[in-house]
Amino acid sequence: MNFLYPIVNPKSVAFFGASNRFSAMGTNQLNSLLDLGFEGNIYPIHPKEERVLALKAYKKVQDLPEVPDLAVMVLPTQIVPGVMEECGQKGIKHAIVVSGGFKEVGGDGAAHEKKLLDIAARYGIRFLGPNCLGVANPHHKFNVTFLPFEGRPGFIGFASQSGSFITQMFGYLRRYNIGFSAGISVGNEADVDIVDCMEYLAACPHTRVIGLYIETIRRGREFIDVARSIVPSKPIVAFYVGGSEAGKQAGFSHTAALAGPDELYDGVFRQSGIIRAHSIPELFDFCWVLGACPQPAGNRVIIQTHSGGPGAVAADACSRTGLVLAKLSQQTREKLSPLVPPTGSMNNPVDLTFSKNPLDFFSVISDMLLEESNSDGLLAYFLAPGKSIRLTMEGMGIAPDQIPQLTEKLFDDQGKSLAGLISKHQKPLVGFTFHSYEELFVRKLLHHGVPVFPSPERAARAMAALVCHSRLVDKIKSDTEKG
Amino acid sequence: MNFLYPIVNPKSVAFFGASNRFSAMGTNQLNSLLDLGFEGNIYPIHPKEERVLALKAYKKVQDLPEVPDLAVMVLPTQIVPGVMEECGQKGIKHAIVVSGGFKEVGGDGAAHEKKLLDIAARYGIRFLGPNCLGVANPHHKFNVTFLPFEGRPGFIGFASQSGSFITQMFGYLRRYNIGFSAGISVGNEADVDIVDCMEYLAACPHTRVIGLYIETIRRGREFIDVARSIVPSKPIVAFYVGGSEAGKQAGFSHTAALAGPDELYDGVFRQSGIIRAHSIPELFDFCWVLGACPQPAGNRVIIQTHSGGPGAVAADACSRTGLVLAKLSQQTREKLSPLVPPTGSMNNPVDLTFSKNPLDFFSVISDMLLEESNSDGLLAYFLAPGKSIRLTMEGMGIAPDQIPQLTEKLFDDQGKSLAGLISKHQKPLVGFTFHSYEELFVRKLLHHGVPVFPSPERAARAMAALVCHSRLVDKIKSDTEKG
Repeated sequence: MNFLYPIVNPKSVAFFGASNRFSAMGTNQLNSLLDLGFEGNIYPIHPKEERVLALKAYKKVQDLPEVPDLAVMVLPTQIVPGVMEECGQKGIKHAIVVSGGFKEVGGDGAAHEKKLLDIAARYGIRFLGPNCLGVANPHHKFNVTFLPFEGRPGFIGFASQSGSFITQMFGYLRRYNIGFSAGISVGNEADVDIVDCMEYLAACPHTRVIGLYIETIRRGREFIDVARSIVPSKPIVAFYVGGSEAGKQAGFSHTAALAGPDELYDGVFRQSGIIRAHSIPELFDFCWVLGACPQPAGNRVIIQTHSGGPGAVAADACSRTGLVLAKLSQQTREKLSPLVPPTGSMNNPVDLTFSKNPLDFFSVISDMLLEESNSDGLLAYFLAPGKSIRLTMEGMGIAPDQIPQLTEKLFDDQGKSLAGLISKHQKPLVGFTFHSYEELFVRKLLHHGVPVFPSPERAARAMAALVCHSRLVDKIKSDTEKG
Repeated sequence: MNFLYPIVNPKSVAFFGASNRFSAMGTNQLNSLLDLGFEGNIYPIHPKEERVLALKAYKKVQDLPEVPDLAVMVLPTQIVPGVMEECGQKGIKHAIVVSGGFKEVGGDGAAHEKKLLDIAARYGIRFLGPNCLGVANPHHKFNVTFLPFEGRPGFIGFASQSGSFITQMFGYLRRYNIGFSAGISVGNEADVDIVDCMEYLAACPHTRVIGLYIETIRRGREFIDVARSIVPSKPIVAFYVGGSEAGKQAGFSHTAALAGPDELYDGVFRQSGIIRAHSIPELFDFCWVLGACPQPAGNRVIIQTHSGGPGAVAADACSRTGLVLAKLSQQTREKLSPLVPPTGSMNNPVDLTFSKNPLDFFSVISDMLLEESNSDGLLAYFLAPGKSIRLTMEGMGIAPDQIPQLTEKLFDDQGKSLAGLISKHQKPLVGFTFHSYEELFVRKLLHHGVPVFPSPERAARAMAALVCHSRLVDKIKSDTEKG
């Protein structure tokens, strides 16, 4: 068993630093844990309170009726070492140190961190942090970050040098109907580092793709070796901040990270087989598409649209990311021809302009385009005019009270149909729309597992990330055969 | 009066091509017009129907009881010239030709378009299109595009070679609480072109900023001259598609546009004083910030955050867009010091980590940072944890039925406070968040006119667009003085 397992999936937790004061960080974190319905034992340790948030509290860790799997510490810096010592004496082997005030503050901070590390080593304790936000593992109903979990357990295994990008992304990921399999905030990485997390996430059965937020890499050689061993079976995406001077300085204030130039990190990622993202949204876009779509055989794509402008923008975006617009075969053109009105175009982008039967758009037409052997994937523009469908149905004389149900059924069928085509053809299909993710139609597509991005550029870059991953895997395999 | 005025603000409309068949494009477009509550006269012309969508219909335009300001044609290509002729005979001087099948389809299309132009010239008719989606002018309750209008009248005057980027963006803009002052779809630009639209929008009192979606520029010299005359009083932002080979080809299928290389267009925009956006979201981001914020005096910014990761990412993003992180003066540091906890940082990013009084975050702290004379603008990271505020209030013993109202008041006050600071200091303030735009807190900020972007990169680029505009205006002014 990976040594991180009890930190990410503890059966029981000693919690230091929660109280009944609601403005306290520790209280918030314990609240998050309770809110998600953690099923293990929780032991708040508090010097004065009898009860903390309706749980029985203990004066000292020594008093606990069992040896918990994990200690979580949200305490003033100066008392952390003493508590670590007491946890060691109790026999606890795993900890999360949320407290800041160590290496990242400069001055004596590094010495404090060293002391903490020495105590942990003496007792054989492995710990996350300090200066981290802990772990969110929704599959285990375990979340000790300071915001309550939202959304559903997902397939993105995430290790981050910023806890914010775990806890503050719950709602963000929920909007796309994706989520973390596990999110691990590593903080200053005094003991557990991002390489350890990659190894854990490689072994985690819920994790289909690994995401990394990086301000610095502390063990370069191991990072590359571990990544190369994982990538052929599980894609890794990383977002690196620190390439600019300002980013570097901000990173140092944040987690004492010593950042290097962009080009160096570009090289490290390429060698590791890791796809580099250039923003937080892009990081999660890439994780999403890599976890949700089959790998494309190459970089040729078809764009399906019913609007010229979005088609043209998507074509331009594809070109700029190294994708190639596939040339439709004579066979596909013949099959497609009766479905394309005279105002449309069978060049690529395939622009339907207007479908006689709108239901064709996500069934027979997408089916034909995914069938096309000259193409490796499909980008589809989704127009989801909820209001205009309502007006049309009203105009057709459908009773107003039946419209919501009919619309729901219609959209659900289309979502299911499209998701079925991804499985049938084993090719990636990514959608894009300018509509809100609150629109029923978009929600239905997401529900059935079709990735939909909020702009053609993001859809094109996500598709390009799939192609990039295939190439990186090929490179690693060919190096291995040679070597 | 600008000659486009009756096309964008007609008092009465003859509508060709709407019927009672709800799958027809023309019916949808008339539906949009009715749905927005257009207050002028509407005359559907239909060869057979007595009534169209509850309006009295007329067999021929000659039968109308008045000469309407505008004719809208959503008709089969081959009958458009005849109808244009009849409109001319009736004395109509303005038209919107939605119908496609002209120059953009190749073959005889160009000849058909020429014929249409000749008829219009003979009768002195000015017209938009063909192959366009018409106009949306929410200030005049006038929308003939095929989707019903959503949201509110705004300050973005938009001229577009793709009608989709008008009609399909209603919901998109509504989410940000912004909107069009007028959106004009120019289609093939047989008569009215994008330069005419720029002149109209320059004169339009509702328009604070002009946005352009461009696949080609047909009158280069006039484009540059007109833009340069507008930019000192009204910013212009353009998104050009066609720089890549695929984009170019897609544009030709779409509106018969002959695109040129990226570098050429870069030069044209620079010379015109136009800010170039690189995607649809960026186009509207730039329009938003330029319409909502005061102009910055320079490129020095402060980042305010309560999370290290988002602060570091914002710092990196600012650097990459040419913004400079301001150095806080001793005076500001002294004022700020009591409000920054020991885990925080007064370097820039100013990282509060945790505020003893969360209400300070958007009042006294932002006030101090906007006051700083070393800085020209503020980027603020917004964390809007609706759920965690609810849990906290519940924990504090506040009655559950009072929580929504208290939260509403709290967020509204903060939004108002922040908006007040923009006016007070006359410096730009842009926010960013990873939260949904459905979150109450974000909605309140938008409601009070604070621009909030969904990532640090987009916030940084929006701020950089403000700086870019100032520089372009300076350049035009200095050229004019020299010249």
